[in-house]
Amino acid sequence: MAWDAWGLPERRQDLSDAQRALLTAALGVSGDLQPERDAAAVTLTESALTSAASTALAEAVGADHVHTDHDRRLRHSGGKSTPDLLRRKDSGPQQAPDAVVEPADHDQVAAVLTVCAAHRIAVVPFGGGTSVVGGVDPEPGDLTAVVTLDLGRMNALLDLDVESGTATFGAGTTGPQAEQLLAEHGLSLGHFPQSFQFATLGGFAATRSSGQASAGYGRFDDMVQRFRVVTPAGELALGQAPASAAGPDLRELFIGSEGVFGIITEVTVRVHPEPEHTVYQAWSFPDFAAGAHALRTLAQSPDKPTVLRLSDEAETGLNLALASDIGGAAPTGGCLAITTFEGDRAGAQARAGRAAALLTAAGGTALGEQPARAWEHGRFDAPYLRDTLLRAGAIAETLETATTWQNLAHLRQSVTAALTGNLTAQGTPALVLCHISHTYPTGASLYFTVVCAQSEDPLTQWMSAKRAAGDAIVAAGGTITHHHAVGRDHRPWMAAEVGELGVAVLRAVKNTVDPDGILNPGKLIP
Amino acid sequence: MAWDAWGLPERRQDLSDAQRALLTAALGVSGDLQPERDAAAVTLTESALTSAASTALAEAVGADHVHTDHDRRLRHSGGKSTPDLLRRKDSGPQQAPDAVVEPADHDQVAAVLTVCAAHRIAVVPFGGGTSVVGGVDPEPGDLTAVVTLDLGRMNALLDLDVESGTATFGAGTTGPQAEQLLAEHGLSLGHFPQSFQFATLGGFAATRSSGQASAGYGRFDDMVQRFRVVTPAGELALGQAPASAAGPDLRELFIGSEGVFGIITEVTVRVHPEPEHTVYQAWSFPDFAAGAHALRTLAQSPDKPTVLRLSDEAETGLNLALASDIGGAAPTGGCLAITTFEGDRAGAQARAGRAAALLTAAGGTALGEQPARAWEHGRFDAPYLRDTLLRAGAIAETLETATTWQNLAHLRQSVTAALTGNLTAQGTPALVLCHISHTYPTGASLYFTVVCAQSEDPLTQWMSAKRAAGDAIVAAGGTITHHHAVGRDHRPWMAAEVGELGVAVLRAVKNTVDPDGILNPGKLIP
Repeated sequence: MAWDAWGLPERRQDLSDAQRALLTAALGVSGDLQPERDAAAVTLTESALTSAASTALAEAVGADHVHTDHDRRLRHSGGKSTPDLLRRKDSGPQQAPDAVVEPADHDQVAAVLTVCAAHRIAVVPFGGGTSVVGGVDPEPGDLTAVVTLDLGRMNALLDLDVESGTATFGAGTTGPQAEQLLAEHGLSLGHFPQSFQFATLGGFAATRSSGQASAGYGRFDDMVQRFRVVTPAGELALGQAPASAAGPDLRELFIGSEGVFGIITEVTVRVHPEPEHTVYQAWSFPDFAAGAHALRTLAQSPDKPTVLRLSDEAETGLNLALASDIGGAAPTGGCLAITTFEGDRAGAQARAGRAAALLTAAGGTALGEQPARAWEHGRFDAPYLRDTLLRAGAIAETLETATTWQNLAHLRQSVTAALTGNLTAQGTPALVLCHISHTYPTGASLYFTVVCAQSEDPLTQWMSAKRAAGDAIVAAGGTITHHHAVGRDHRPWMAAEVGELGVAVLRAVKNTVDPDGILNPGKLIP
Repeated sequence: MAWDAWGLPERRQDLSDAQRALLTAALGVSGDLQPERDAAAVTLTESALTSAASTALAEAVGADHVHTDHDRRLRHSGGKSTPDLLRRKDSGPQQAPDAVVEPADHDQVAAVLTVCAAHRIAVVPFGGGTSVVGGVDPEPGDLTAVVTLDLGRMNALLDLDVESGTATFGAGTTGPQAEQLLAEHGLSLGHFPQSFQFATLGGFAATRSSGQASAGYGRFDDMVQRFRVVTPAGELALGQAPASAAGPDLRELFIGSEGVFGIITEVTVRVHPEPEHTVYQAWSFPDFAAGAHALRTLAQSPDKPTVLRLSDEAETGLNLALASDIGGAAPTGGCLAITTFEGDRAGAQARAGRAAALLTAAGGTALGEQPARAWEHGRFDAPYLRDTLLRAGAIAETLETATTWQNLAHLRQSVTAALTGNLTAQGTPALVLCHISHTYPTGASLYFTVVCAQSEDPLTQWMSAKRAAGDAIVAAGGTITHHHAVGRDHRPWMAAEVGELGVAVLRAVKNTVDPDGILNPGKLIP
């Protein structure tokens, strides 16, 4: 990945004429792109790794896998949120890990933790580096140095149990690597978050990731059966049985623990046969309320789709305006919904047919399969556009939450009002788009996209808007994050999320598994 | 419930002639019933409650709801496992709580905990009292007295959100009370464990209960959306959103915590419309391996049944021998499987039809609906027969586990061998029956029923067999309990289940939420 942008450098794009015109008309942004920075000219904070620590790390993983070179450190300097990318525009020295260490397996991870505890070095686990909440920031906390533990070499299929439908992967296996290794056996995992192309299975587990096919295949925490985790106080292998009543489910303490409790090294996930057939169907609803009602009806029915999404009027309209650029979706106004149904041909078609009857009865108009295929085609591309907008003088950032069906309209209204109010007051009125991308029988997620002109200090500008949105989410009964995790950026709201006693419980667990506090300082726990 | 037996005293039954003949022929047990004990003549340990504590408790819940009478204490003296009932045959003083306290609501539970912490009194939460693992034993630990907190007054439907499909109940609401309250709105919960008639929603949550319709409606931990829990260190309200990535899921620490971390006072569960139609279908498979393979195929298909069970050859044969007594099931040998499909009529029939094709292809022979209806009719009756067998000089006890599909045959063989080997060595050869009653895409539960003649010291006899079975479960990769929880009886295997570090984490959480150790001493945590 590029050090100062999402994804592959060769995928960087310019603005189309339509995009540039829209930016100028709606936000007063010229659309001229800032030049890119030369990575080699970026100054880094000096590496604080002692030679004794370096030697000990080399003994743990081999000297070839302890890196202190400029390029490697720069590429591990943090995640990919808009604030991250804004910070990388700063001309001063960039924060970077003092070393990047690449263990080959579970035992080497344990050896690294032993070295780092002895040398009082912080350890930041790093999968794909796609965090948008500051989850992989190289924070040393009160320690002497910080090592980023890149798990990319741990990318093998370690075990496949076809009978039980489970596969065990090294934690550093990326989404595409996992799908390719499974495809050789006619199997699939079905986890496709927007970070899919770069993020890893260990990262999915550590951040409670949720993919675009969550309606059909569940969230990643549903997929995880077992894992191994290494902590400074020892290791754990959890989840031997498919289900258990043997006390609290300790897996759920380490899933979502974002590296502060331990390093997940091996993950066993539920897999399924590659779908024989996919039915694509797009729908238009007169407004967001009607569309949300229709999605609820389907999410509460036995005929679950694989993908189920609904864009609000603003998102639908903007996509329509840019249709020629994003694949040709051209709904007839209102709100666009996408459904897909995967399975054997007869089963997928039967479920799609029953769903179509439900959605039609709920006021939907079928738009055919093309807009759904177009969505799928472009579904990993939004971050590239975000980066271009950033270079063009706009802010384009996203945030997300979830709540019950009953509370959904209230939460959406509250967050939208907080964002538009805050940014208008800052003199940069914003477009606020929203979609539902994850549905449950009891509720759904809300995903907001905010676009506005950059002020003179866009980092401060956005952090103010983000704070207003987070406060509005908590006040309106939403969760501070449905699938982006907590990291550094959502930490201020954790006490509101789990209560002071919940925070005390997290701290107690932390003190037990990481008594020296070497694991991912400054993340998750207030 | 009876103080020394399962269920309603008026449901006590004699042995039928067929049962008596089978007992004599197979196990050498005469079948003559011991006389019942007179509850009024049973001696209890003297109440150690001080008058100061009694006054403070009366202030917390009202004087009418603090009980120290003989009958109330006796009825809260423990759970309903075979060892529990054997202990109640002891002619010496019975262990009993020093008082039974009945709070009316969440705030009164908090007030009771404050009083008990101040007076160093242990607190045992008590729902239906159906534990079969010693989970409600009135153990004072190292404290001065023990109070059993009977939650039976907290049995109201507190909130109903039809749009989101959730209902909030007081933790002391029993299974039938919940179903009746929901039925008034055309809704159902769908949680039917064998303890259904007496157990409570708070108990289901605190013990990770799993009901007979788990294939269709999930385990109770799947159903729970939110809850309130009171601890001596404060309270928590967890699970506001339908899903979240805000760190570890702390709900999963309190679900299954069996009262050692806090008292669950209010539970919000997912509910669904009462099914319009149920398709019943029984099947015969030539042997257990073929039946298990067929169940796996169905559990991994999209057409999930509501109930899915398979009895092994021994259980099928015994039920056949006793068919006239348990409702007329008369399979043709081999292994009996039960399926039900609930939903709207067309949907249930369609799923049942596709499942029938799968089961037929897997070697099953359809037996029609009658054996499935007979199973449903008698599904809560087994504990009554267990009690009668106990009075007739036999031991009849159950234990359960779960593992992956790949490991299922090995686990079943290991546990069966351990039980038969142990009891044969004790001079009391046993019948060991087994069934699958809970299925998942990745594995299934195994539920064993053991019947043998009582030795001179049946408690020691059974504890030896139980130890052998537990050791075999752990050695063969199963979980020590799939749905009976840990309580006192499975505590010796918890370190094997979650590791020494897992135990250390549980202790750290315990010390944070219950620093004085007043909550349910002697349970769950080694």
